[in-house]
Amino acid sequence: MAKTPPDESATARTSSRPEPRVAKGFRDIEAAELRQQRAMLEKIRAVYERYGFEPLETPVIEYTDALGKFLPDTDRPNAGVFSLQDDDEQWMSLRYDLTAPLARYFAENAQRLPKPFRRYAMGSVFRNEKPGPGRFRQFTQFDADTVGTDSIAADAEMCMLAADALEALGIKRGDYIIKVSNRKVLDGIMEAVGLAGEENTSRRLAVMRAIDKLDRLGPKGVRLLLGEGRKDESGDFTVGAKLTDPQIGQIMVIFAIEGFADEAMDAMSVPTKRDGAGPEAIRKAESIRFDSIIGGMGPVSQKTAIGLQGLSELRDLWKLWSASGYNDGRIRIDPSVVRGLEYYTGPVFEAELTFEVKGDDGQPVRFGSVGGGGRYDDLVARFTGEKVPATGFSIGVSRLQAALSVIGQSATTELGPVVVLVMDKDQLGHYQMLTQKLRDAGLRAEMYLGSSGMKAQMKYADKRGAPCVIIQGSDERAKGEVTIKDLIEGAAWAKPSSAGTAAEDIKDNKDWKAARPAQIAVAEDKMIEAVRDIIARHT
Amino acid sequence: MAKTPPDESATARTSSRPEPRVAKGFRDIEAAELRQQRAMLEKIRAVYERYGFEPLETPVIEYTDALGKFLPDTDRPNAGVFSLQDDDEQWMSLRYDLTAPLARYFAENAQRLPKPFRRYAMGSVFRNEKPGPGRFRQFTQFDADTVGTDSIAADAEMCMLAADALEALGIKRGDYIIKVSNRKVLDGIMEAVGLAGEENTSRRLAVMRAIDKLDRLGPKGVRLLLGEGRKDESGDFTVGAKLTDPQIGQIMVIFAIEGFADEAMDAMSVPTKRDGAGPEAIRKAESIRFDSIIGGMGPVSQKTAIGLQGLSELRDLWKLWSASGYNDGRIRIDPSVVRGLEYYTGPVFEAELTFEVKGDDGQPVRFGSVGGGGRYDDLVARFTGEKVPATGFSIGVSRLQAALSVIGQSATTELGPVVVLVMDKDQLGHYQMLTQKLRDAGLRAEMYLGSSGMKAQMKYADKRGAPCVIIQGSDERAKGEVTIKDLIEGAAWAKPSSAGTAAEDIKDNKDWKAARPAQIAVAEDKMIEAVRDIIARHT
Repeated sequence: MAKTPPDESATARTSSRPEPRVAKGFRDIEAAELRQQRAMLEKIRAVYERYGFEPLETPVIEYTDALGKFLPDTDRPNAGVFSLQDDDEQWMSLRYDLTAPLARYFAENAQRLPKPFRRYAMGSVFRNEKPGPGRFRQFTQFDADTVGTDSIAADAEMCMLAADALEALGIKRGDYIIKVSNRKVLDGIMEAVGLAGEENTSRRLAVMRAIDKLDRLGPKGVRLLLGEGRKDESGDFTVGAKLTDPQIGQIMVIFAIEGFADEAMDAMSVPTKRDGAGPEAIRKAESIRFDSIIGGMGPVSQKTAIGLQGLSELRDLWKLWSASGYNDGRIRIDPSVVRGLEYYTGPVFEAELTFEVKGDDGQPVRFGSVGGGGRYDDLVARFTGEKVPATGFSIGVSRLQAALSVIGQSATTELGPVVVLVMDKDQLGHYQMLTQKLRDAGLRAEMYLGSSGMKAQMKYADKRGAPCVIIQGSDERAKGEVTIKDLIEGAAWAKPSSAGTAAEDIKDNKDWKAARPAQIAVAEDKMIEAVRDIIARHT
Repeated sequence: MAKTPPDESATARTSSRPEPRVAKGFRDIEAAELRQQRAMLEKIRAVYERYGFEPLETPVIEYTDALGKFLPDTDRPNAGVFSLQDDDEQWMSLRYDLTAPLARYFAENAQRLPKPFRRYAMGSVFRNEKPGPGRFRQFTQFDADTVGTDSIAADAEMCMLAADALEALGIKRGDYIIKVSNRKVLDGIMEAVGLAGEENTSRRLAVMRAIDKLDRLGPKGVRLLLGEGRKDESGDFTVGAKLTDPQIGQIMVIFAIEGFADEAMDAMSVPTKRDGAGPEAIRKAESIRFDSIIGGMGPVSQKTAIGLQGLSELRDLWKLWSASGYNDGRIRIDPSVVRGLEYYTGPVFEAELTFEVKGDDGQPVRFGSVGGGGRYDDLVARFTGEKVPATGFSIGVSRLQAALSVIGQSATTELGPVVVLVMDKDQLGHYQMLTQKLRDAGLRAEMYLGSSGMKAQMKYADKRGAPCVIIQGSDERAKGEVTIKDLIEGAAWAKPSSAGTAAEDIKDNKDWKAARPAQIAVAEDKMIEAVRDIIARHT
């Protein structure tokens, strides 16, 4: 049996109160961010739908053996995933991505599914890792996958989908690149430099992960990880792939990391839209760049059958997205893309934001990768033994959202609810009725539900971002009227330069009536209309 | 340290392949249901927003002590919740509802939150229970809560919110009731029949749970559970509250479960909208019913301070929703509502569907409860020691969705993507370009990505629900044309009564050209327009 948590009721009397704290590495997402996220997810969803994918939702919990273990850096047992044991002793885990559950779902339901099977999925995934700044143990992914085809057109489509999704979110052409490479080329090159065979499996993995860290560690860091290893800032030492210097040199050149001849570097430089280059000029330069890269990898890759196949696939990919015009800097081949997950077997993609923003220290920073994916031909075969080729793309939602807020593409200007103030406690039913009238008219509205006085009610309305408040004291009620105070107008009015009484000075209904800043009195049956006017004025 | 799952890599070579299966008690949700669910959630969200609630998302995992244990039937340790241990030995649990995490969130962030704090939340919750038919271990709840007010108006609002949400989903007035009672009345009555004091805590809990099961077990079952206990169909025996016969009798009458005098029963019968009664007639009858119920509970409740307070709250609730006209059968007092969760302290609500549908056996069945909630004044105090009164309402999404599909309120008629067939494999780039053109025009489209021939491609398009397929062989290409085949029209056409070639008989492009059922040839640059026409014809 699994260990179970102590019975709380037994300790309740002796122990002190629990501390209210979100669990380590987890976080709450509040209204403003959630509204932005929702708007963002709807835009991504629209693109995925347009591409013909259908939604699917698999559970958060799966049997551990069904998920398999494909996470990087799993040095300790149970690392990477959250696991627990069911009553019947079976181990279950929280999903760490949406791909492994898809493989399970497809294998379980293959018979009745259309083939190829195309689905999109959005949901929380969980990593049992050391949390860090901006690095959480629960985060949201938004994936599209095509299962059951080895057509390279399915991979090309993923890259176009990625580009379209980013543009749908307001990221300008030229501010992102979908970078593409192929694990087969990488495998071919490793074989060619003498890392073939099962005895080199772990070294090949180490090479792959070293290259994958180019973004973070730069060429020097990669070189160290290809050799003996690297000590990080905290003093932790990561053992390297232990390649020889000539092997390291070859890999650094082939992956265009450093040491390229000047003319090759020139050939690879491409003007961007931001430089003022037109699509045709970019396409031409991209084409030269493509030839130069394939030319650079060619001599080594062609020594092996797998490398040769990888190169040929890259050429086909290039042709396919070029036929639809995506060779204008939206998608390009980049050999340094390898992706950290073990299960990829062919083309791999990475969606990268290329614009720079000023970091906290004033230095320019890039957001880098906001999504990625690739071909994973063996994931379904784990269950069935039959090869079911598949490919997919995944967006890291929070990271992309952070980038979008920096470029001002995530702003939503949502007004708070209209707040109906409670002036006379014996009139709750009437205030409530006024509130329901506003709601029935489709307006966001609420009656103040606390027990505080006028001033606190105004502060509350302000904190909620209310466009206006509805006030009805006994005088107004006698006349069948309500007073509507425009808070946005009122806030402007309350600035020192304006004349009159500021909100801070207003203590009760009498003060209000004397001051009447940015407020109108209307008959109850004109309330809806008047509130609509105010809201329209501020949106 | 917590037990960890066996290292899979160590056993991979000796063990056989894992079986692809969804974990016990969990389920996959597929496209049709997800689309319905999404439409439904959006409608609920709109109502919650209109009521002025703001979205909040708390994590799936919380510290076990922060969640507390408030689930019914927790006989065994760890029962009810899924728990696991973190690296630092702290116990964490998957949330079993959205209320306990809200209490944690509020206690943690109270200082900076507007008070009252009003939030809505939608998300998966997890119960470590024995799964059964239609009873899953992960399901979705959609909650609204107001924290930080003891105003009974906050409770009244929850009931109105519940009614508005159900109507927004297309459930007709008269087909549902929001039933309301008050735990304080229940407590008062139990005190009055001799179940006061700490020594009777577990018996009071047993009484509460017995009454809560009225819907499922009927009056006889409740009577058994109030007494010695009850043996269910499977032979399992549930120990009862062990009340005396007079105590049982009192409770059965007070809760209007059975034994009411005929005139009382008459007073409580209310005509419904479905009987053809107008709102005013219903309101009048509801008012008599209300008096009769309060009258029935009064003599006993008034014996205790808590019962008296509960009765007074029920009167205030009644007045508040009546002022907004919800006393027309939408919301009513019903003493049999108690709610299973331990943490409620005041008014409790239950949203019940009242229409009947034919079950599989031809017998009429009611869907019953699709949501509920109530006041929980002590949940935040667990952390802070300070009383922070709160109230909320929660919708059980899947249950409600099941009900909606029965009454045909969840149907969404979503067409599949347009499928561009692949006639010549060397033209993939061109087919892909045509596909992108359709997508750029905002249409759902995909190129066939499998490797099969014409017939299988047509079958695939059919299975995907494609409105039409785009066909371009070499002849069409030479002319710069595409052929568009209307699959919906074609399906009608292919019925036995129609003339011509049925889809089954078509084997290749040549057959197609000969038959041309429901298809047109258009210039490539007229493709979008022609597809739009076909889609418009079928929606």
